[in-house]
Amino acid sequence: MVTADSGAIAQQATGTMLEHFFTPKSVAVIGASTEPGKVGHDILRNLIEAQFQGSIYPVNPKADAILGIKAYPSISEVPDGVDLAVIVIPAKFIPDVMERCGEKGIDSVVIISAGFKETGAEGKALEEQMMAIARRHGIRVIGPNCLGIISSNVGLNASFAPVTPKNGHLGLLSQSGALATAVLDWATLAGIGFNKFFTFGNQADVNSIDLLRAWKDDPDIRAIVAYIEAISDGQTFMRVAEEVARVKPVIIVKSGTTAAGAKAAASHTGSLAGSDRAYDAAFQQCGVLRARTVQELFDYAIAFANQPLPQGKRVVVVTNAGGPGILCTDAIEKMGLELAPISDELVEKLKTRMSPSSNFHNPVDVLGDAKADMYEFALSTLLEDPNIDGIFNIVTPQTSTEIPETAMVVAKMEEGTEKPILGVFMGGTLMQAGVNLLMSHDVPNYPFPERAVAAFKAMADYAAWRALPKEAPIVFSVDKAAVEAAFAKSRAEGRTALNEVECAAILEAYGFSLPKSKLCATADDAVAFAASIGFPVVMKIASPDILHKSDVGGVKVGLATPDTVRDAYDAMMYRIKSKMPAATIWGVNIQQMVTTGKQTILGVSRDPQFGPMLMFGLGGIYVEVLKDVTFRIAPLTERDARQMISEIRSYKLLTGVRGEEGVDIDAIVESVLRLSQLVTDFPEIAEMDINPLIALPGNDGAIAIDSRIALTK
Amino acid sequence: MVTADSGAIAQQATGTMLEHFFTPKSVAVIGASTEPGKVGHDILRNLIEAQFQGSIYPVNPKADAILGIKAYPSISEVPDGVDLAVIVIPAKFIPDVMERCGEKGIDSVVIISAGFKETGAEGKALEEQMMAIARRHGIRVIGPNCLGIISSNVGLNASFAPVTPKNGHLGLLSQSGALATAVLDWATLAGIGFNKFFTFGNQADVNSIDLLRAWKDDPDIRAIVAYIEAISDGQTFMRVAEEVARVKPVIIVKSGTTAAGAKAAASHTGSLAGSDRAYDAAFQQCGVLRARTVQELFDYAIAFANQPLPQGKRVVVVTNAGGPGILCTDAIEKMGLELAPISDELVEKLKTRMSPSSNFHNPVDVLGDAKADMYEFALSTLLEDPNIDGIFNIVTPQTSTEIPETAMVVAKMEEGTEKPILGVFMGGTLMQAGVNLLMSHDVPNYPFPERAVAAFKAMADYAAWRALPKEAPIVFSVDKAAVEAAFAKSRAEGRTALNEVECAAILEAYGFSLPKSKLCATADDAVAFAASIGFPVVMKIASPDILHKSDVGGVKVGLATPDTVRDAYDAMMYRIKSKMPAATIWGVNIQQMVTTGKQTILGVSRDPQFGPMLMFGLGGIYVEVLKDVTFRIAPLTERDARQMISEIRSYKLLTGVRGEEGVDIDAIVESVLRLSQLVTDFPEIAEMDINPLIALPGNDGAIAIDSRIALTK
Repeated sequence: MVTADSGAIAQQATGTMLEHFFTPKSVAVIGASTEPGKVGHDILRNLIEAQFQGSIYPVNPKADAILGIKAYPSISEVPDGVDLAVIVIPAKFIPDVMERCGEKGIDSVVIISAGFKETGAEGKALEEQMMAIARRHGIRVIGPNCLGIISSNVGLNASFAPVTPKNGHLGLLSQSGALATAVLDWATLAGIGFNKFFTFGNQADVNSIDLLRAWKDDPDIRAIVAYIEAISDGQTFMRVAEEVARVKPVIIVKSGTTAAGAKAAASHTGSLAGSDRAYDAAFQQCGVLRARTVQELFDYAIAFANQPLPQGKRVVVVTNAGGPGILCTDAIEKMGLELAPISDELVEKLKTRMSPSSNFHNPVDVLGDAKADMYEFALSTLLEDPNIDGIFNIVTPQTSTEIPETAMVVAKMEEGTEKPILGVFMGGTLMQAGVNLLMSHDVPNYPFPERAVAAFKAMADYAAWRALPKEAPIVFSVDKAAVEAAFAKSRAEGRTALNEVECAAILEAYGFSLPKSKLCATADDAVAFAASIGFPVVMKIASPDILHKSDVGGVKVGLATPDTVRDAYDAMMYRIKSKMPAATIWGVNIQQMVTTGKQTILGVSRDPQFGPMLMFGLGGIYVEVLKDVTFRIAPLTERDARQMISEIRSYKLLTGVRGEEGVDIDAIVESVLRLSQLVTDFPEIAEMDINPLIALPGNDGAIAIDSRIALTK
Repeated sequence: MVTADSGAIAQQATGTMLEHFFTPKSVAVIGASTEPGKVGHDILRNLIEAQFQGSIYPVNPKADAILGIKAYPSISEVPDGVDLAVIVIPAKFIPDVMERCGEKGIDSVVIISAGFKETGAEGKALEEQMMAIARRHGIRVIGPNCLGIISSNVGLNASFAPVTPKNGHLGLLSQSGALATAVLDWATLAGIGFNKFFTFGNQADVNSIDLLRAWKDDPDIRAIVAYIEAISDGQTFMRVAEEVARVKPVIIVKSGTTAAGAKAAASHTGSLAGSDRAYDAAFQQCGVLRARTVQELFDYAIAFANQPLPQGKRVVVVTNAGGPGILCTDAIEKMGLELAPISDELVEKLKTRMSPSSNFHNPVDVLGDAKADMYEFALSTLLEDPNIDGIFNIVTPQTSTEIPETAMVVAKMEEGTEKPILGVFMGGTLMQAGVNLLMSHDVPNYPFPERAVAAFKAMADYAAWRALPKEAPIVFSVDKAAVEAAFAKSRAEGRTALNEVECAAILEAYGFSLPKSKLCATADDAVAFAASIGFPVVMKIASPDILHKSDVGGVKVGLATPDTVRDAYDAMMYRIKSKMPAATIWGVNIQQMVTTGKQTILGVSRDPQFGPMLMFGLGGIYVEVLKDVTFRIAPLTERDARQMISEIRSYKLLTGVRGEEGVDIDAIVESVLRLSQLVTDFPEIAEMDINPLIALPGNDGAIAIDSRIALTK
């Protein structure tokens, strides 16, 4: 069923066919070179040296054979089927080659070559042309402008990386090829292995979301690490990332986090970088761990890839030296883990073999002369205690320290327990044998205790997140049609800013509580209504002809008695009729004046990557001076809303200080969720504020006093 | 002139005689052992292997020779003079040996042995006994309970550390021997050298302050790094540290920073750990750089030891890869450095040799195929620009990257410039040769850009601090006698809490502005005075017999007219005379009621290490909920006071928001300084609050409304 939209359909049809990138049986290198140092040569050499378990076909019109393998003048002349083509020829020739690949039935292509979108308008056009051909043939494309890909399972190193990583449990995604190169070299020295190592450059087709989705059920990948400069479809990313994060940890370094960084990112990838707060909110909501540096990324990754998740955050430090033990306990407290209390019973057990001058409480000090058997005794005794969720095992190189033997003890203990043990073998040359043993037995090691603690904290946080049931956003019953009508009217009148009455109507349609209010046509009406809702009240002139009510004396606040209401009515009528004799006057709006509770602010802005972003804070100086606000991407779950509210520094002002009663937090949560639903239902809302939303004491609700809505232009 | 206090005098007399720890010509090892693995053996072996440039005398009653060196049965029988004795015998024998050392005229002793203060009361007594002997003989002591000392100048490794560090530009102080061991091993692998490496254990005599003072003018030490668990004399530490920091950087990791950490520190060293905020304040005031981790300590140290200080914080990133360049610029913005703008003229210069597809702005991208000469061109061109204060040179291992050659280029550039260049050669095995070359040419290298940026930031901050002239505390002319009298009276009456009148008198004596106030004996008086100072006013009953004025209706606030003052006077007299007929009534105090300005709080607590610690914050919820306060150790300079005030998050509320006039910050500064003088003059002030101190708008001053003073018990 080929239609005018066949490109899109082809794309969709091939949406999940990425297997040939992961387990191809044959690979062609189009642009293989005889010349060492050329990328087309290095890739071929990498394929051979990494012992690819299938057939390799160099394609080069000028060579008979390269590196001992028969070469073919064009991809069309390769006699057998080809699962994967790696293209390293100049950009301008690529559309034609893509056509040949399609004719040959190749469905997976990696384009190493640069010269596309990242170079400007001409390159962008070339990229689109090339992709149109790919889509027509149902070809999935990684790149262009990338380092290539590595799939250890089948010995595939289809990259020009200068080293082939050892096999391991990590899947890596990198938008930057050069960073990946450095990371690979560093990781190899540190003994870190990768199952898959993919760079994807311009993401013309296959992007980080596709790879995340594909790796979700890959049994060889225990943790996914990624370096990302920009995400193009934030909402899809969040949905997919959450699905994956429920199965395995996803740890991401997102660069371009500051204004200057973002500028550099834009010039590097030709894509827009979202604001950093949006990424923070999005990652938090979908369970992605955000690493702040590449070092942190791998500090976390080696823990996740090699250790079970902790059941809680109660940890013990075992050490043969006081100083490092203190540094470790400092870090534990600072990062919010808990030093597990060592019960009297446990102390007694430890005392059966440990010297009386040992420290039996956290940090458990086995003393400087501890040999491997003492560590074994301490670790095995502590691991039995159900109140302990994990152990930091610190070893310093002292005179009688048995370094490799102690490493073997830790490895053995780790095999026999479901609790994480992180090694902190501190030192350099002396420690190397021990550290190598740990790494080869899947025990991560950190040269300094703080880095081990940060990794454990990431594991504990992730475990806690994953233990929470998945929540769906609450859907309130609302009057969408009323909002549609208000927007249509505003559009029809050429306005993007909605007026006060429209804003109130929209909030009402979405179930917000508004101040009690009534249009009163006479002074008697006004007095009666004021008395019925309680004093004080606000009076506002009601006229379709008066936009700036305050300017003409059309607003009075704090009217506290029937008489002042009556006086204010008469005075307002007299003044406005004399100032604006032509204006139609409907009467006045009498509005409830809320004098208790706390002023909060709910805001909405639209992030270029993630869409509607909600803000919450306390009103006034808390927002303006202290910038004490939090963000989330809509739609929010109830848990998101509750977290968002409780994260502000001044949260205690809402729960009540100095004996004061707290305000109705549930009502704020509901307001946030209703706002989330509104901005999700109406992508045309560009910006919106509810300011103030007054949260009333006790269970009295929250009232949206004033609001502002601007539509997209 | 030997007096009863001769011990103290001997100590003072030898106060600066530490040369024999740094450059001894002969060393005795008392307790040298024939048995490998024993500490007494390892120290001797270290002395020999480090090629000590003087004579070594093993002392052991049971051996003729150890490791080929003639041994002596006791220190007394060593035939020659001995500059330094290293003692490794059991603690209980040490007092006697100390006596022998004294008789032999030895003036410097390192005690390795444990079993002193750290073990409890008995050990403490032994330590005191041993020190009494040392003082009598004028012997300076390092230790006990330490790893020993290393002085590379004379090839002295008088420690049982498992490795001897390479010679370098750092002086290291460590309270923990085991941590020092791990650091040494790690530093050796990282290519970091030490000129002096001292552990000092229990600090029975020579402490970190003595060593800091001694190393201030040591030309071989370019930077001092320290690991400290507790400082016993905070005020002396601050004075000495500032003197040293004005000459060379002092970088300290202070552990035991959290509650749990502090507990561990106490059990480890037997000394009290000061609160973390006091250390933060103290280090900041005396120009000490506080590293948060040992890794950070050395990241900073290698920059300081090897590079000139920057003139400013405008930096350039040179890179052969986009991704790492973005990470680096992210870090630069986040940590508060500035990306130097690259002028059009400079871009033109760069364009003469760099490819047009390079990025000519920060980060300057020399592209992935850049060879060493391209780095040389970029670096030399950028270094010439007077608007650039330093460079981060990022290299990733790409196909055509010339790693060692590029390292040599960086080393050459570094030699020819007064600006710091930090290397970020990212990778592992492939980078090793380059990194080694950098280190051997005094260019620090960091595997990740963020760590390089943090080190540069530390250098820039330190350079800025050192560029500021030293400030002395301002001394106000005050009435000390009045305060002495008030305290004496309170003590005489058995009170540690001062009453309202005393507090006011004390503040007045130290020049604080108090609310205008007068004792008025009649209603007419009260009305007249109120009229003279302006309404509203506060009225308080004046009676020596009434302590809790509010309880008997003896306080009225907000009296806004002459009539209300008169009414209040009469009512108060009537009520109190009927309730307390026996009370002597002097009349009422009429006090100015301050209705403008901002409420701030000044507080004083006494830190066990550093003494009087001042707190500043905004009053009310800012202190109670947001904990938005800052601390400094008294005495403060004007600069300290101004910084302290401007550091609170809500500072903008003082300078004025929403078009509001700012308050009189100079007056707050002066109040802080007067308080600093008061608590410095009177160590018997245990705690004190001025709450609120109302800072008035414009230049109208600051008024101490209420205060509370508690004396030490």
